[in-house]
Amino acid sequence: MTLPRRIGAEFVGTAMLLAIVVGSGIMGERLADGNDAIALLGNTIATGAGLIVLIWMFGPVSGAHFNPAVTLARLWRRETDATAAAAYIGAQLAGAIVGVWIAHMMFAEPILQIAAKARDGMAQGFAECVATFGLIGTIFAVERHRPDATPIAVGLYIVAAYWFTASTSFANPAVTIARSLSDSFAGIAPHSVPMFVAGQISGTIAAILFFAWLLREEAAA
Amino acid sequence: MTLPRRIGAEFVGTAMLLAIVVGSGIMGERLADGNDAIALLGNTIATGAGLIVLIWMFGPVSGAHFNPAVTLARLWRRETDATAAAAYIGAQLAGAIVGVWIAHMMFAEPILQIAAKARDGMAQGFAECVATFGLIGTIFAVERHRPDATPIAVGLYIVAAYWFTASTSFANPAVTIARSLSDSFAGIAPHSVPMFVAGQISGTIAAILFFAWLLREEAAA
Amino acid sequence: MTLPRRIGAEFVGTAMLLAIVVGSGIMGERLADGNDAIALLGNTIATGAGLIVLIWMFGPVSGAHFNPAVTLARLWRRETDATAAAAYIGAQLAGAIVGVWIAHMMFAEPILQIAAKARDGMAQGFAECVATFGLIGTIFAVERHRPDATPIAVGLYIVAAYWFTASTSFANPAVTIARSLSDSFAGIAPHSVPMFVAGQISGTIAAILFFAWLLREEAAA
Amino acid sequence: MTLPRRIGAEFVGTAMLLAIVVGSGIMGERLADGNDAIALLGNTIATGAGLIVLIWMFGPVSGAHFNPAVTLARLWRRETDATAAAAYIGAQLAGAIVGVWIAHMMFAEPILQIAAKARDGMAQGFAECVATFGLIGTIFAVERHRPDATPIAVGLYIVAAYWFTASTSFANPAVTIARSLSDSFAGIAPHSVPMFVAGQISGTIAAILFFAWLLREEAAA
Repeated sequence: MTLPRRIGAEFVGTAMLLAIVVGSGIMGERLADGNDAIALLGNTIATGAGLIVLIWMFGPVSGAHFNPAVTLARLWRRETDATAAAAYIGAQLAGAIVGVWIAHMMFAEPILQIAAKARDGMAQGFAECVATFGLIGTIFAVERHRPDATPIAVGLYIVAAYWFTASTSFANPAVTIARSLSDSFAGIAPHSVPMFVAGQISGTIAAILFFAWLLREEAAA
Repeated sequence: MTLPRRIGAEFVGTAMLLAIVVGSGIMGERLADGNDAIALLGNTIATGAGLIVLIWMFGPVSGAHFNPAVTLARLWRRETDATAAAAYIGAQLAGAIVGVWIAHMMFAEPILQIAAKARDGMAQGFAECVATFGLIGTIFAVERHRPDATPIAVGLYIVAAYWFTASTSFANPAVTIARSLSDSFAGIAPHSVPMFVAGQISGTIAAILFFAWLLREEAAA
Repeated sequence: MTLPRRIGAEFVGTAMLLAIVVGSGIMGERLADGNDAIALLGNTIATGAGLIVLIWMFGPVSGAHFNPAVTLARLWRRETDATAAAAYIGAQLAGAIVGVWIAHMMFAEPILQIAAKARDGMAQGFAECVATFGLIGTIFAVERHRPDATPIAVGLYIVAAYWFTASTSFANPAVTIARSLSDSFAGIAPHSVPMFVAGQISGTIAAILFFAWLLREEAAA
Repeated sequence: MTLPRRIGAEFVGTAMLLAIVVGSGIMGERLADGNDAIALLGNTIATGAGLIVLIWMFGPVSGAHFNPAVTLARLWRRETDATAAAAYIGAQLAGAIVGVWIAHMMFAEPILQIAAKARDGMAQGFAECVATFGLIGTIFAVERHRPDATPIAVGLYIVAAYWFTASTSFANPAVTIARSLSDSFAGIAPHSVPMFVAGQISGTIAAILFFAWLLREEAAA
């Protein structure tokens, strides 16, 4: 695929992902009468289902990273080059922000917002580390032995991670930054972003190291 | 397949789809004690699961459009001819209306109803544009590279779209018209229909253009 | 496979199916604080998920009918013989009843019960006709063109049908009779059983006729 | 694969499983406003989705047992040897406990806890027997005829079993012991553990015997 189309796929795919994450959060919050577990259930099934579809749609074009952590991990493993990686990350950030604005427009909310929802504390950062370790591990382990199952695996992983991590698993720096621009169910206050991103980076590194060991080719006997 | 059987598949398939959409909406509304998020959860899993099954059932016969927007997009791409397209759209509209009436009969409701539920405003129309862009894009992108996954992708997309679009994603003119004949959870007041259909048409056109660019064959090097 | 093992598979499979249907109904009822939509959500995902697994487990042994309507439809289509069909139906009825009792034992309920929950009226009977039409149609249509997808299709169909049919889709005479022996969420009063079974038989016949027409082999040109 | 990597896969996989089970239980409990059915819904979809992913991730390395009952059943069937089985069970127990602690850390709870939640009575033990019979049967029956479907089958089985068994289906001695170290939604008081493990062992034995009969190779005619 030509680079412009790969960039287009990352931009539109990440925009759709954020529209799904933020839009379904607003829908859940509006309908759930204050029961956050019900809102999170709707948010979860929408995100998991939508993510699987987006990876099927855009994976053959761009690889469907939608996530700077994934792009950097693939750069580390030399599965992409620095130029493409930089372009991908730019497209992801821009797409993520546009996706948040699309969600706001659909729900007739002010387009420009800043999140007030604090997500602070070491435990939240640790949760993001665990969440991202699992996400990167899912991608590398499943694509190695069951590549056709990777899109479904990533979606199911996020379904689980929305519930088992205390941070509801952002696991994606572009998603984290973009969600700071939505004062809704899915929002995160800007001052909470750095701890989240730090957790995500450390989880990415841990996953690269552990799964490189676990999955390395055996020497021929 | 002969045309009568293809038409029969579109008619019965669209009728079952509407029976599912409207019937599960009534069930959710009756049981959920006024918590619309819980009603929407039931409505969502029923529609998503049922749609996957209907596409598996009728796809090999008629292509399982169930949707004039899909039929028109395929006509544009010359994957069907005008005669078949007209017959399909007629069968979809008739089937959709019969499906609504079947739902009413099952739930012992008056068969003939007019919806009172207004779904107005530019934001709703924009939501339908986004919803239909995503649906048409899902079909064209997934059937290109992962055709076996298309039925599941369409069902999962609708699961996501019920939650992330402010309009709960009708994304289908036949469904929209038929739902104006049900004064229940899934209903839409007749005066809100034109804006929805306009959004659906614009989303269809946007998807045709964008995905034609994204997925076009590369010139041989 | 030898007939005893096929019968064993029908008996154990149907017992597990009823333990799932009745057990998850009791669990839902106990936990949901009177919100029947939440109870039905739990009942739905347990039944759909469990049914897919049971068909994968026992399908290669017995065909995984678990349902006299399915066995009779296969007899009509000469896919089984009368002796096997009679043995299957006996095993299904016995297994279904044992499954209900296992559910009662697990939840420390009295083993022998009679349901008090009336499910009356023509609309309920019509709902069972629709539900069974869809179930038999799902099986015959999907196994024709996508046989590997049949177990998932049947499970997803039941997920949809629990919500879109007013009767919550029993769609199975053995299940209906056995559920009259449980005075719980999934129960049905004995006097309501005949109407349900009549609806199931008429839906089965309608499905046999319609799908024989829709799916018949085309004459070679 | 070398034994250290197989052990590593069992350790990390079981740790992630317990982080999912306990973490999503805490999340559900915190958000659900006392409605345990909603908490169990979140716990269920997280566990089912996560388990499928973990089996895809680690299955090609270690077989993805994560469960001493599975390891012992495979030892009985001579699919592993005693040394590997002992190492597996040690890794499962250690991983399970670490996973519980990770969940506590993510949710900023005290790391060391003892569960107070009694799960007593013969009916609970019987429920664990049924739950484990079904789990072991799922694995052996599905891997025989549809091995590619086994990861999904195991996840879907657990989804069903969380709801249809009165005990919410621990079905795993390592999981049971580790959950006695969490005073949360998923906890089990230490004095309730022996009955659970006894039920699990009896269910394992019953499954080995029944499915050996059901699935044995037919003599050539």
